[in-house]
Amino acid sequence: MDITFSVFIASSLDGYIARPNGKLDWLEKSAIKGDTEDYGYQTFLRSVDCIVLGRNSFEKVASFSEWPYAGKRVVVLSKTLKEPPADFIDKIDVFGGSVELLAVELQHYRMSKVYVDGGLTIQSFLKFDLIDEITITQVPILIGRGIPLFGDLRDDIELELVSSHNFPSGFVQSQYRVKRRTKN
Amino acid sequence: MDITFSVFIASSLDGYIARPNGKLDWLEKSAIKGDTEDYGYQTFLRSVDCIVLGRNSFEKVASFSEWPYAGKRVVVLSKTLKEPPADFIDKIDVFGGSVELLAVELQHYRMSKVYVDGGLTIQSFLKFDLIDEITITQVPILIGRGIPLFGDLRDDIELELVSSHNFPSGFVQSQYRVKRRTKN
Repeated sequence: MDITFSVFIASSLDGYIARPNGKLDWLEKSAIKGDTEDYGYQTFLRSVDCIVLGRNSFEKVASFSEWPYAGKRVVVLSKTLKEPPADFIDKIDVFGGSVELLAVELQHYRMSKVYVDGGLTIQSFLKFDLIDEITITQVPILIGRGIPLFGDLRDDIELELVSSHNFPSGFVQSQYRVKRRTKN
Repeated sequence: MDITFSVFIASSLDGYIARPNGKLDWLEKSAIKGDTEDYGYQTFLRSVDCIVLGRNSFEKVASFSEWPYAGKRVVVLSKTLKEPPADFIDKIDVFGGSVELLAVELQHYRMSKVYVDGGLTIQSFLKFDLIDEITITQVPILIGRGIPLFGDLRDDIELELVSSHNFPSGFVQSQYRVKRRTKN
């Protein structure tokens, strides 16, 4: 595949991407006050031409004052939403099929790099062995419970560390490439 | 307290310290074949004068051909084991009380640095805010399920990153100090 599926996400050291209610206050309180460090997010975002996210993540992003994905193809995964909300007709596509089918479609549409976001969405793509790269920024806090980044798998997924570095905030960012399985 | 409680442990990137059956094959297959790198373990072990571990971890260690904790005070946490197995009479103490009480006792016995090991044991010490340092070596693999390193907490635990570095194997080792809560 010439298409790359990438995850770029922050998690607590105990592996949560949000509190059970979706809140990110733990992330904000761990950052250095007034720090403008974006941990490479804008550079990453510029490098993608497509974003796939779940409905919960979409609703969070849709509530922002500005739509952050202008100029990108955005696909919202949802079994229940049949079409985009009126304000988002020209901004998103809704997809109700399997992630495997979506991966084939995005390749057909000649997307080159897809940003896969949201807990369940990331877990589905991982389960079907569709993720190529994972950049995880670990925040130095344990929150005890929440929405987990990772979930159950069909088999181990071996990774290759590309780089790892840390920031004055104590955040540790590690970039991994998924080793493709040689099928037995 | 002049006593320090330290965790030194490896986990998969998705936060497991062993497979559901206790196996560590994923860790072994991720290491570089023939590599003698010990990730600082022997240096850490030399720095402690006491080891606290749960019964499952004890049984694992007891099955090794050599007892690795000679010369250290070793406390096995167990509600059911009343006394050490015959072969371990002079090697371990069994403790059936709370971890809070144990912490007080170890301080009374003038222990200076305690190595806290095993999933449930680490989780109990964290829950009662008794851990001072955590060194976690993250292995570049997702295993999907297993014995989790971290568990539920009563409150957030904020950490301070002391150092982080990575190895040719792709293992990322980060050392954290627990920020003591200022009680309200």
